[in-house]
Amino acid sequence: MVKCSAAIDRTFSALSDPGRRAMVARLVEGPATLSELAEPLGLSLPAVAKHLAVLERGGLATSRKVGRARVCTLAPNAFDEARAWLAAQRAAWEARFDRLDALLIEGGDET
Amino acid sequence: MVKCSAAIDRTFSALSDPGRRAMVARLVEGPATLSELAEPLGLSLPAVAKHLAVLERGGLATSRKVGRARVCTLAPNAFDEARAWLAAQRAAWEARFDRLDALLIEGGDET
Repeated sequence: MVKCSAAIDRTFSALSDPGRRAMVARLVEGPATLSELAEPLGLSLPAVAKHLAVLERGGLATSRKVGRARVCTLAPNAFDEARAWLAAQRAAWEARFDRLDALLIEGGDET
Repeated sequence: MVKCSAAIDRTFSALSDPGRRAMVARLVEGPATLSELAEPLGLSLPAVAKHLAVLERGGLATSRKVGRARVCTLAPNAFDEARAWLAAQRAAWEARFDRLDALLIEGGDET
């Protein structure tokens, strides 16, 4: 059976949009208000607010009200689970080719 | 403006489902037919075929007909773009904290 992992589902899903990735790339540099995110990215405030909600559900960002502004911050360890999953697949893939290499070398010795 | 990157959008989107990630984790070990993918994962053949189409669009897998079976293979460098994007964000995030550390140490020297 397929194990569910709703958190990593939401992380990958949140990263599947170029606007949200651009917001993440901006937040990596430090916290920003919704307006500070919207302007340089050429996004409307409602679009940024909507993307922020998806990033928050995906565990990638948090936000808090400061006066009349909403300040967004990248979540600590935001990418760790996604990176670990990709790294594990990569390692398994490389291990497979190492085994194939070993088999080919063994086969070569026999000829 | 937000740069579009449809390929990486589709890769992250393809990885946002536990069934598709389980298929990828199986294909990392070597090629498999649709039936070989379906059975251990507890998925129906139509579900696997549908997931395969998403993985193919996401550049993660390829498939070909062999007799009456369809054999699926993980695409070479399947994760490279997604991994590179995550690694770049991680590096920028760490660089930011290194700069903050340096500022704190500088500030500490002045007291």
